[in-house]
Amino acid sequence: VRGEFELIDLFRERIAVAGAAGSPRLALASGDDAAVSVPGGATATSVDAIVDGVHFRRQTFTPEQIGAKAMVAALSDLAAMGAGPGEAYVQLGLAPEMTESELTAMADGLARVASGEGAAVAGGDVVRSPVLFLAVTVVGHADMPTDFVTRAGAEPGDVMLVTDPLGGAAAGLVLLERPELAAALPGEIAGDLRHRQLEPTARISAGQALARAGAHAMIDISDGLAGDAAHLADASGARVVIDAAAVPVAPGISELRAHVDPDRLVYGGGEDYELLAALPRGRLEEAQASLRERGLDPAVIGRVEAGEGLVIRDATGREPAVQGFDQVRSPTRGEQS
Amino acid sequence: VRGEFELIDLFRERIAVAGAAGSPRLALASGDDAAVSVPGGATATSVDAIVDGVHFRRQTFTPEQIGAKAMVAALSDLAAMGAGPGEAYVQLGLAPEMTESELTAMADGLARVASGEGAAVAGGDVVRSPVLFLAVTVVGHADMPTDFVTRAGAEPGDVMLVTDPLGGAAAGLVLLERPELAAALPGEIAGDLRHRQLEPTARISAGQALARAGAHAMIDISDGLAGDAAHLADASGARVVIDAAAVPVAPGISELRAHVDPDRLVYGGGEDYELLAALPRGRLEEAQASLRERGLDPAVIGRVEAGEGLVIRDATGREPAVQGFDQVRSPTRGEQS
Repeated sequence: VRGEFELIDLFRERIAVAGAAGSPRLALASGDDAAVSVPGGATATSVDAIVDGVHFRRQTFTPEQIGAKAMVAALSDLAAMGAGPGEAYVQLGLAPEMTESELTAMADGLARVASGEGAAVAGGDVVRSPVLFLAVTVVGHADMPTDFVTRAGAEPGDVMLVTDPLGGAAAGLVLLERPELAAALPGEIAGDLRHRQLEPTARISAGQALARAGAHAMIDISDGLAGDAAHLADASGARVVIDAAAVPVAPGISELRAHVDPDRLVYGGGEDYELLAALPRGRLEEAQASLRERGLDPAVIGRVEAGEGLVIRDATGREPAVQGFDQVRSPTRGEQS
Repeated sequence: VRGEFELIDLFRERIAVAGAAGSPRLALASGDDAAVSVPGGATATSVDAIVDGVHFRRQTFTPEQIGAKAMVAALSDLAAMGAGPGEAYVQLGLAPEMTESELTAMADGLARVASGEGAAVAGGDVVRSPVLFLAVTVVGHADMPTDFVTRAGAEPGDVMLVTDPLGGAAAGLVLLERPELAAALPGEIAGDLRHRQLEPTARISAGQALARAGAHAMIDISDGLAGDAAHLADASGARVVIDAAAVPVAPGISELRAHVDPDRLVYGGGEDYELLAALPRGRLEEAQASLRERGLDPAVIGRVEAGEGLVIRDATGREPAVQGFDQVRSPTRGEQS
């Protein structure tokens, strides 16, 4: 059995695979008191932590998937800023019973996602902890602060665009927790939904494309469409109107209708990590084309109006009772950075 | 009882006190997907996590002290780079039984230390966790990467300087765990030692002064003098020779000799957060003067020679048996960033 210091070494060696392949901005990676980088004219920094039993279960995810999920969740916030990939720093709280091979697998998952998105894992630390947690800090770069797309710029007349169908990750979790429900679906679709939960993707490239297409405001859908759309409306001081019939739903969800409310998956289900953007109408075609080039299936799901708050309307113009919506109808909370 | 989202708001409001007072580099603080800053020509980034029951005990520390300790531990790594204060990001894992007032007190401790050192708390997040943890990321700025002082530059002929007497924090922890031992000490000194453990200081200003005085290499003493000196020697590819008789020891430690080995406190005791620097001999007076101006009592404790590893010699030139030294005699591990 290795000591804690040796585990720190091991973890750093594994994540350094990505560091070495990483950012030209990195002047000095893990191994000193701090990592040294040469930033762009502006940086976007976000932190995201996941905890065993709260954000994932070790029974459901492999160690490699846990590492990957932690990195995706953090990078997704950068994607929502339209930020270029930069550096990542990982703090791992290692539970007592975990093995060395679990540690290396988590490091490999972290490194795989980071290097896949062009981010360098510049630093890492391991501490002993009664419970497994991964706290990831990511830094993205741009030339100027105004190059980043915040949640706050949506303007009346903008269209609301989502990068790909929603609800898949939440449906995947349902299938993982209740495997018998998969019988209602073609095997390939059930597998896609599970994969969506177990192997999510951060839309880094899509976020940069939307920024270039002039997105006025952007957010990643990590807490469900309703909550995140409401945050964007609040931050922008505008009303976001969503046309429920236009919201694209991941294949397989309607087949699960007898067991789980599709609205709950789409409006309340987290971890899709798709992006929701407010775009000037004149740039819509350009934005959609650039997303399709990336293999995505974007959809216009609504518009921005003068006013405040989030409104979801069905085909008749009425507001349907949407699970996961009522709770966030008047959000006053801020959001994480 | 407030919900998790409200606790996140509360935490952010409290730490934002420091953010608002903070860095002119901060273009957008907590409240979007990421914080946006305008960095200097180079940044130093370090992460540090502390976990209840591992790095502190909630029975020993007040919530305010826990927050302060987490921030000091992180900022100490920046001090060791000679970095100027920049931004801090905090991820709090909140244990189920913790109250709102404990949360706000921790936020106040984090904010107090950050603003005291001129760092802006630019982002924060709260997640539910079975155990309390605080994971802090700090970013410091300089004009160029070479402005930072790493562990790797010590040269034969350099003198080894420590910023203030050592062992106080470890002795304070002994007194907190075994209060009856305080009877061996004047009350004021016992109080000073406890304070040293409960209210540590990051030597940000001292680190910058040592960088300006041309320090070739620097490290913060967080794991005990022996371990950290060995890391500096290893990183520099040089031998560090410490004269045991010259190592300054915090007042009160010798009076505890009957109960605890002073060497264990000084060489193996962590959390002093003093700095150990390798300085060119010609800059020594300047460095000492600048530290004394800051109320510190620096001491030359040894020198750098050609060779490798750490050697500790007593007045007779022999290597004494030093607790906390043998374990690290041939360290091969890297260190945290």
